[in-house]
Amino acid sequence: MYEAHDLAKVARAGALCIAAILLVVVPALAQNDALPSWNDTAPKAAIIEFVKKVTTENSPDFVPEPERIAVFDNDGTLWVEHPMYTQLAFALDRVKTEAASHPEWKDTQPFKAALEGDMKTLAAAGEKGLVELIMATHAGMTTGEFQKIVTDWIATARDPRFKKPYTELVYQPMLELLTYLRANGFKTFIVSGGGIEMMRPWSEKVYGIPPEQVVGSSIKTQFEMKDGAPTLFRLPQINFIDDKAGKPVGINEHIGRRPIAAFGNSDGDLEMLQWTTLGGTPGFGMLIHHTDAEREYAYDRNTEFGRLDTALDAASVNQWTIVDMKADWKQIFRD
Amino acid sequence: MYEAHDLAKVARAGALCIAAILLVVVPALAQNDALPSWNDTAPKAAIIEFVKKVTTENSPDFVPEPERIAVFDNDGTLWVEHPMYTQLAFALDRVKTEAASHPEWKDTQPFKAALEGDMKTLAAAGEKGLVELIMATHAGMTTGEFQKIVTDWIATARDPRFKKPYTELVYQPMLELLTYLRANGFKTFIVSGGGIEMMRPWSEKVYGIPPEQVVGSSIKTQFEMKDGAPTLFRLPQINFIDDKAGKPVGINEHIGRRPIAAFGNSDGDLEMLQWTTLGGTPGFGMLIHHTDAEREYAYDRNTEFGRLDTALDAASVNQWTIVDMKADWKQIFRD
Repeated sequence: MYEAHDLAKVARAGALCIAAILLVVVPALAQNDALPSWNDTAPKAAIIEFVKKVTTENSPDFVPEPERIAVFDNDGTLWVEHPMYTQLAFALDRVKTEAASHPEWKDTQPFKAALEGDMKTLAAAGEKGLVELIMATHAGMTTGEFQKIVTDWIATARDPRFKKPYTELVYQPMLELLTYLRANGFKTFIVSGGGIEMMRPWSEKVYGIPPEQVVGSSIKTQFEMKDGAPTLFRLPQINFIDDKAGKPVGINEHIGRRPIAAFGNSDGDLEMLQWTTLGGTPGFGMLIHHTDAEREYAYDRNTEFGRLDTALDAASVNQWTIVDMKADWKQIFRD
Repeated sequence: MYEAHDLAKVARAGALCIAAILLVVVPALAQNDALPSWNDTAPKAAIIEFVKKVTTENSPDFVPEPERIAVFDNDGTLWVEHPMYTQLAFALDRVKTEAASHPEWKDTQPFKAALEGDMKTLAAAGEKGLVELIMATHAGMTTGEFQKIVTDWIATARDPRFKKPYTELVYQPMLELLTYLRANGFKTFIVSGGGIEMMRPWSEKVYGIPPEQVVGSSIKTQFEMKDGAPTLFRLPQINFIDDKAGKPVGINEHIGRRPIAAFGNSDGDLEMLQWTTLGGTPGFGMLIHHTDAEREYAYDRNTEFGRLDTALDAASVNQWTIVDMKADWKQIFRD
């Protein structure tokens, strides 16, 4: 026997029916347009063929939905990384903001170089210098405070060439790819060398990727009860570097199963693509090759900013798909 | 204009409609039975009231679905931990299995004690001894090999008192609670002091919790290409201890947002419950108090196996719900 509130539920079920029809039919009609910013070249065809293969029941390559894990590098794969990682731009701004409380930075490297915008000295300071900057400017506050700092910065900072917020310089074809994969039962993760807490405050809004699906580099935190309130305090100690051989380690730790598709753009993604594609089961590997100096940037092993070298060789050996940005993407940046 | 294959889609949409009606109406009718193994005592009412509060739109305590994160301790909260953690039973069996390759263990503690089942000496060796056992028996193989070892062991090992596989000694009321929360838009995570790779091989099948939603203690792994195949090799080095003040750290690292509900049973869960409930927004905290020596076990600060002491004090101060296993649970173990 149904009571009144059950009838209301039936009415709601009716509404759900219409939604169900829309959900099934509209994508069917729009099927050919799931990736409208991609030209009809080989990479688009390779993506669609792979997705069809793993989602077709009773096909030998069918993959059950819970195992459809796709991992994406961030810098240079989902958004612009040239001429400097957004994380570095953030760190340099943090140094400027905090300089008043640190008069000694005026005469201490790499802070002096950061304050003076002396990129040559900064580059010479290498990874060690970058880590020093990050430890000094990303630690010493609670996780909540840091989240606010990132949120405020990302809302106001502008890319120097395009004069736009960094979150608008994300690649439209990759946004479509994320949506397309999710619509086909994939769970999408970011696996980035960038700071995990630098991405989480905006990844859900910009990419549709929730914080728990972001893997990245991190510093150590410490739990403390402070005046009766629980806090996590950020310590100036590296916890994990999610780059190169660290990427499979981070994937294993956070996800606990091997992805079936991986998307990157640099040598830092080599091991992630190896881990994804060479494990005995079919996996899809893709590299974004930055070839469009006009609309974005052109760089690889032949240029000074040369992040793509051994991974490019590995791509041809392992049949990973290479995206030629200029030829394969109709549109670069998000609408 | 619809073509033939679109009409097929419409037919499928029709089937979806029926499914939608069943999905909406059947739970409505069965609503009062979402937690049938719980007696109609205060804890059940508290759970239902909390879920209603955070899922009612336009209520002041409404929480959007993506933020409905619930975290569960494992040992003693989802399955039996008495008289010894399953992880320790596993480690002891591993020592026996590997003893032939380690003749020196016959005369070296804590291995000697492990081989002889000398629990008194093992207990005296404390955490340091346990870590030694784990490093010697959980490392030195690939992640894939370890996964197989766990899977084989969990299928054959039996609890000495109940003579059943450990995965059958999971609590029916908690299984119902996991399902009930997920049906209300929660994402459920395990946050356990146990080894992350000890739980992942079976957590999805037993709890409906996929590997990427399991947080636990871990050892370090290292990526290697071996004969052209990518491997992650388990090293005898501790990476992270997900217990006590480590639990909020692990939650932050893996999930990246604060849970709104936390379930534990011991002092090891204290900080997790603090982090969940004392952060300024309403959070639900629950402790399982083992009070049923007949059907399971009875222990707290007044017994030798005394894992629940300061957390019990904190529960009354912070209005966490305490489950009296004997009084509040109709049934203990899964069907």
